[in-house]
Amino acid sequence: MPRDEALLRLAAATRELVDSVVLTAADEDDLAVAAKEVEQLTERLRQRLHEHPPRPDLGPDGRMRALANPVIGEANPLAPPLYVETTTDGTARAEFELGAAYEGPPDLVHGGVSALILDHILGSAGGAARRPGMTGTLELRYRRPTPLHRPLVARAWVDRVDGRKTAIRGEIARADGRVCVEASGLFILPSFLADQMEEAQRYRD
Amino acid sequence: MPRDEALLRLAAATRELVDSVVLTAADEDDLAVAAKEVEQLTERLRQRLHEHPPRPDLGPDGRMRALANPVIGEANPLAPPLYVETTTDGTARAEFELGAAYEGPPDLVHGGVSALILDHILGSAGGAARRPGMTGTLELRYRRPTPLHRPLVARAWVDRVDGRKTAIRGEIARADGRVCVEASGLFILPSFLADQMEEAQRYRD
Repeated sequence: MPRDEALLRLAAATRELVDSVVLTAADEDDLAVAAKEVEQLTERLRQRLHEHPPRPDLGPDGRMRALANPVIGEANPLAPPLYVETTTDGTARAEFELGAAYEGPPDLVHGGVSALILDHILGSAGGAARRPGMTGTLELRYRRPTPLHRPLVARAWVDRVDGRKTAIRGEIARADGRVCVEASGLFILPSFLADQMEEAQRYRD
Repeated sequence: MPRDEALLRLAAATRELVDSVVLTAADEDDLAVAAKEVEQLTERLRQRLHEHPPRPDLGPDGRMRALANPVIGEANPLAPPLYVETTTDGTARAEFELGAAYEGPPDLVHGGVSALILDHILGSAGGAARRPGMTGTLELRYRRPTPLHRPLVARAWVDRVDGRKTAIRGEIARADGRVCVEASGLFILPSFLADQMEEAQRYRD
């Protein structure tokens, strides 16, 4: 899929651009030239627009992907992006590192960015267990600061299923295992999906 | 401050670029050319880098600003950015709209993005009441879907202060007032700041 490859290359380049905008020491003139270039480039890309971002689809490896997702989307420059590995018993895991654009307090990850990532990875664990859902509640406990520019691990696991509600837990930890942020949430299976899944189950039975 | 202006213009242009990357229908060749241009531009901006992003400082209007913050930072292309108005009795309020790059389910804001914004605006309310703090706990309740491309309002208010802990509540609502996400959190005043504030208080007394 060569167009996909070109899109992912552009998204990766834009992600690096975001990082360099946040860190650059370029002077006024260089910044003004750069701004003009980006404006012109954006105008070209906007000559033909889709009505919405790429929606989840099957990737070339046969796995579902969400190219435009703000956490895992390789085609979304806002996303770090996280590469999440899941198991069908409802676990999800991703190793990642966050750069300067995600800073809250000096040298630390913004607390809201940790919340963004945990919401997503908890949802991934649910999806992996065939319990996809919208976030109903999410509780976060910040145990210690989360460092920027250091290897981090996000994990989540399905705790229990109760009708359309799935209770999921998770955490972000440093590489040495010390937990920075703990999360637990209730994810709600949309009723139209619940109906479809029931139908499919009856069909299999 | 002309350098600041040029930096903000570049950040705004990059924010629009992010949006156009997520939505563009450009073909493979145009995407490849664009990727190369962004890579070259990034290389130029990286010739001189600061060690860390701009830290909070006094803006030209005499108000504190956090140029690189991932929620409110005008110089951070990841940030929508939110323009937060605060009152010294501990309220914070921002009107905003989120575009395609923040999408979770089709046409809806990613639940984690709402969490990111609420974490920040709750912290802003605490800061406005001279109770700046790190997030200790954050509880989110998703009441209804949060639409993309629609005017939204985020609000927060200090509920009570208990030693170094400040309880803060908030919400994201649609323009018609219907609440999409509710939040409550405990924010912890760092001990070094608590000491400084006590010292300043003694000095005033």
